Amino acid sequence: MKAVSSRDNPRLKRLRGLSQSAKDRRQQGLTVLDGPHLLCSALDAGVGLAEVWVSESGIARPEIESLLRRCPDTVETFSLPDPLFSQASPVDSPSGVLAVFAPVQPLRTLDNGNWLILDRVQDPGNLGTLLRTAAAAGIAHALLTPGCAQAWSPRVLRAGMGAHFMLPIHEQVDAMAALNAFGGEVIATGLMPSASSLYEIDLAHDVAWLFGAEGEGLSAPLFARADRIVTIPMIPGCESLNVGAAAAVCLFEQYRQQRAGGSR
Amino acid sequence: MKAVSSRDNPRLKRLRGLSQSAKDRRQQGLTVLDGPHLLCSALDAGVGLAEVWVSESGIARPEIESLLRRCPDTVETFSLPDPLFSQASPVDSPSGVLAVFAPVQPLRTLDNGNWLILDRVQDPGNLGTLLRTAAAAGIAHALLTPGCAQAWSPRVLRAGMGAHFMLPIHEQVDAMAALNAFGGEVIATGLMPSASSLYEIDLAHDVAWLFGAEGEGLSAPLFARADRIVTIPMIPGCESLNVGAAAAVCLFEQYRQQRAGGSR
Repeated sequence: MKAVSSRDNPRLKRLRGLSQSAKDRRQQGLTVLDGPHLLCSALDAGVGLAEVWVSESGIARPEIESLLRRCPDTVETFSLPDPLFSQASPVDSPSGVLAVFAPVQPLRTLDNGNWLILDRVQDPGNLGTLLRTAAAAGIAHALLTPGCAQAWSPRVLRAGMGAHFMLPIHEQVDAMAALNAFGGEVIATGLMPSASSLYEIDLAHDVAWLFGAEGEGLSAPLFARADRIVTIPMIPGCESLNVGAAAAVCLFEQYRQQRAGGSR
Repeated sequence: MKAVSSRDNPRLKRLRGLSQSAKDRRQQGLTVLDGPHLLCSALDAGVGLAEVWVSESGIARPEIESLLRRCPDTVETFSLPDPLFSQASPVDSPSGVLAVFAPVQPLRTLDNGNWLILDRVQDPGNLGTLLRTAAAAGIAHALLTPGCAQAWSPRVLRAGMGAHFMLPIHEQVDAMAALNAFGGEVIATGLMPSASSLYEIDLAHDVAWLFGAEGEGLSAPLFARADRIVTIPMIPGCESLNVGAAAAVCLFEQYRQQRAGGSR
């Protein structure tokens, strides 16, 4: 492990840039994860890490020490005094360990299974929560339109809680074009009178779920592309849920139906 | 309408304090909502507003103009140049209208129906989303333990999208004591082998749902107080959902069951 103590160290400068700047991450094709939980998920998934950085107080924690021992020899490791670590961390409450790595490219092309298509979801917390829900509900592919936040930014990674390493994530996708190759039913949520209740439809087949940004909703062409509009029944006077909550209700209703129809 | 143009105006100073400081809000028993959507919800609910502040560009918007006309004469209205409005706004992208009001005290004491008990949920976005979901699923009472974020802070109000005006919210609650008066089933989520699948239990009766902070979970005494632990079935290898997503799945599964058992 190399000890870095100068704030002008070029590797440390790069780390700070990757932590703080979407542009730096895009240009270098690298990102930063924060915390032992995510590092453990990345190691479990066999993600190729470039660098691991630990704070001096972080090294002393057995949880972090054992993660360091799990890193392959190809991973460069660095230690930092706590104040420098805090400055380089992408989060307000630094957790003692960071890792630099290249976002995982989906190994599988878009094939069968359920898809989650997210249109212009810009809030990192919402986006990470949606990916976490999708992984837990067995979504086969997440597709993100160009207006979405960077899926691999530190904040989205943190909210995703490891989902990034379980779920193929396709960014900058032309969703209309991708749907041409989709063989299942395309479903959006909405309130029009013609909408079906989520609980009155059969979901035991492949579905591409469409969810849009808070407030704005789906782009008009995508909404028009839906084969079916569903409504989540709720108390009169309430018109909608947070996009993460709505997706959780829909995806887990489908998981419930598909599980009930299967080996359960 | 009074035009305020000095940044040292005492009423404007108070507005800034209420927007930015949890301590100011607590000491004065007042809070600030932001945006036409929330203002409309507050007016619909008959909330007593103390002040409404508009930016000069906000006054020109028909949506805001018509909301101003709906305000009773007892509401003091102020206009502000856009730069002063931005400084006084609790959010990064000011929407043109703010209102000062006292948090709505629950009119009903804790009576029958479903309860949502939130233990030390500190993230304002998560807390607001949870309240929004609870209102939509017909929860009768939301109970917040002392470790939760301020329910009526501007950020929680914004994420709640009007839920605050539909749902009795009880803050600083001793949940253990409150549960002594609860006649239904107390349910927490968890992963232990003895847990029931959410989809295999009958939820057509009053339930007090317990959800804890991200990461830490419920306090040990509250968890031990649960009559039943339920698990949301999910893909093996995924251990949990975001607390807002998990609550949405549980509360809407109950809503589905209670609706199916009723007049549907």
